[in-house]
Amino acid sequence: MQFKQDGNTFIIYVEQNEPIMETLTQFCKSQNIDNGQISGIGAVREIDFGAYDLENKKYVRQLFDNLWELTSFQGNIILKNGEPSIHAHITISDHNLDVKGGHLFEAKVGAVGEFILKKIETNGKREFDPRIGLFCMEFNN
Amino acid sequence: MQFKQDGNTFIIYVEQNEPIMETLTQFCKSQNIDNGQISGIGAVREIDFGAYDLENKKYVRQLFDNLWELTSFQGNIILKNGEPSIHAHITISDHNLDVKGGHLFEAKVGAVGEFILKKIETNGKREFDPRIGLFCMEFNN
Amino acid sequence: MQFKQDGNTFIIYVEQNEPIMETLTQFCKSQNIDNGQISGIGAVREIDFGAYDLENKKYVRQLFDNLWELTSFQGNIILKNGEPSIHAHITISDHNLDVKGGHLFEAKVGAVGEFILKKIETNGKREFDPRIGLFCMEFNN
Repeated sequence: MQFKQDGNTFIIYVEQNEPIMETLTQFCKSQNIDNGQISGIGAVREIDFGAYDLENKKYVRQLFDNLWELTSFQGNIILKNGEPSIHAHITISDHNLDVKGGHLFEAKVGAVGEFILKKIETNGKREFDPRIGLFCMEFNN
Repeated sequence: MQFKQDGNTFIIYVEQNEPIMETLTQFCKSQNIDNGQISGIGAVREIDFGAYDLENKKYVRQLFDNLWELTSFQGNIILKNGEPSIHAHITISDHNLDVKGGHLFEAKVGAVGEFILKKIETNGKREFDPRIGLFCMEFNN
Repeated sequence: MQFKQDGNTFIIYVEQNEPIMETLTQFCKSQNIDNGQISGIGAVREIDFGAYDLENKKYVRQLFDNLWELTSFQGNIILKNGEPSIHAHITISDHNLDVKGGHLFEAKVGAVGEFILKKIETNGKREFDPRIGLFCMEFNN
């Protein structure tokens, strides 16, 4: 992992074979980033992602081993149990340029991982919301 | 709807059953945001979206009732007829992680709606462009 | 091409028939933007895009002539051989709202091209990485 910094904006290069979510989360902790925004592109493999089944309050998941283009990575950083936590959704494309997408659990960089992170100087947190079954943003209390 | 503010950057939580475009547009009016950028992720339903048919100068539209992941929401805020107006495109994914996408008219939050809005301190506006058939950015006059 | 500026943030309107990558790259040069972030939406045609074949170290490419919604454009600006260079990935949707995606070589604006560019005041550069076969971010040397 390498990065460049301009104030609260970071260009982050996650390198081949590095796990994206783990690497970016560790970066937030090391830089004291509690809230923020991340977006990115690249090429990834070992992609563990899914969609939320609200009725059964659990994720349906798929794992793709092969190399896919990371056509879009969009996410936010919010405190969960006192630690910065990244929530990110992706779209990916294969060699036919067909696209899949969902909630990202983890993926490894297959070729390059190019991210831009903006630290937001707020203290927003997530709390478990039993109606949704997820840790949801809770900014009022 | 709940939000956190850091200068011109807002983290906005649009809550279950709230209409995204209406809620975000109202937020822009209440905060005097004339120009800006919005991105977001979440899970949505009652999705009214489409693609522009330039030849016939009208949108083809589809309505999806079920819950879909909001894999990407990207948009801008520009003045139209003196009011802030959001132009946003989305991609969404289903439980097979298959993806659809297009121009967003409106969608309701199905589980969570997590947005980051950056106010841009300019006064860009849209004017109707008869060649395109749409209100297009017009920054020169 | 028209734009509005708020400090290091630019709203850029790439107009019908203008080539997106060439127009935005020329804009970076004219504004002395060495590093930055770009995102955007619109409607495009003559879309030259692809996916990276790591094994053979070359892109597989497709060319779509027709008008597609530009559902997501995400990219960064990094120096390559001393000049600002844009790396961007897109997703696009057709009139069935089906989505394709990949690495963008070039596309023309079919109806409108609406971009937001943020200049980042760093000097990050790309160097050729023979293991990957691409010019990759190289921030350490």
